[in-house]
Amino acid sequence: MKTPAKTVRDYIRTIPDFPHEGIMFRDVTTLFANPRGFRMAVDQLLHPYTGEDIDVVVGLEARGFILGGAIAHQLGKGFVPIRKKGKLPGATIEQAYTLEYGEAVMEIHDDAIEAGVKVLVVDDLLATGGTAAAGIKLLERLGGDVVGCAFVIDLPELGGRAKLESLGMDVHALCAFEGA
Amino acid sequence: MKTPAKTVRDYIRTIPDFPHEGIMFRDVTTLFANPRGFRMAVDQLLHPYTGEDIDVVVGLEARGFILGGAIAHQLGKGFVPIRKKGKLPGATIEQAYTLEYGEAVMEIHDDAIEAGVKVLVVDDLLATGGTAAAGIKLLERLGGDVVGCAFVIDLPELGGRAKLESLGMDVHALCAFEGA
Repeated sequence: MKTPAKTVRDYIRTIPDFPHEGIMFRDVTTLFANPRGFRMAVDQLLHPYTGEDIDVVVGLEARGFILGGAIAHQLGKGFVPIRKKGKLPGATIEQAYTLEYGEAVMEIHDDAIEAGVKVLVVDDLLATGGTAAAGIKLLERLGGDVVGCAFVIDLPELGGRAKLESLGMDVHALCAFEGA
Repeated sequence: MKTPAKTVRDYIRTIPDFPHEGIMFRDVTTLFANPRGFRMAVDQLLHPYTGEDIDVVVGLEARGFILGGAIAHQLGKGFVPIRKKGKLPGATIEQAYTLEYGEAVMEIHDDAIEAGVKVLVVDDLLATGGTAAAGIKLLERLGGDVVGCAFVIDLPELGGRAKLESLGMDVHALCAFEGA
């Protein structure tokens, strides 16, 4: 009998206690390193948007850059990064969001998105949704029309999907893991 | 008369005094955001390697992730990140290198590259070559065969190309800027 083909989820490995004790870290580097895994992830991230207009792909620092670069290239569109504060060289707008302890700030170049453009946001992981929500706010402040948010992994217990859907977002994830 | 087509270099903007006074920062975000610019950059980064065997694409954090993701996808190969210390969740090997002030450390997962695989290293910018040289050392320590190092921008005055060529590397850059 043939072995069943591996899914995207099968290529993801779990590293216990990273970045600190009690966290089961879902590591996509093993997915990205595998040619078939990487190809499947990029293709499947785009399936719901087949036939839809997307003008630009936005990736969230840093693993969202890997996926976002591939997806922008597949679509023949441009790529725009949303980065942690202080990394972008030009004039930016910024958006703070709360973390478990303290807060973080994401930035986008203030001329990176023209009003009315249709944006697809990509990242590897949807956890609490804080980073993605900050990114969406940045894009909407520039007048962007966020047509979807696509993730490889959803951690449903952390509530990110609900948070983004409450912002009116269409959320797409390739697989889910229980446990934070 | 037709306007001459823009080159990759034409899409790169210069931001004076970033990250500190006196630096002319060459900003590739305007290149990546333009569909034609991004497509040309990815295609041209690969032209010298046409017909060559490449098993895996390695990108250097963080802008190398955008290009590396697109290039791995175009080639139908896997992508492996080399990151700043502390970001990779699994067991790593690390390599320190000197900066203008102090030093920095790059890491790779110790199981990310199998011995003998042919690796293409990509990043946006070749300056002093310190980061790229550290990345090459990491790859060679794992037994990887680095078949080329491809950059969008070379800053020849900073000596990166000479440094990498002294390590036996084949260096490919799409354009050069004078002045650090």
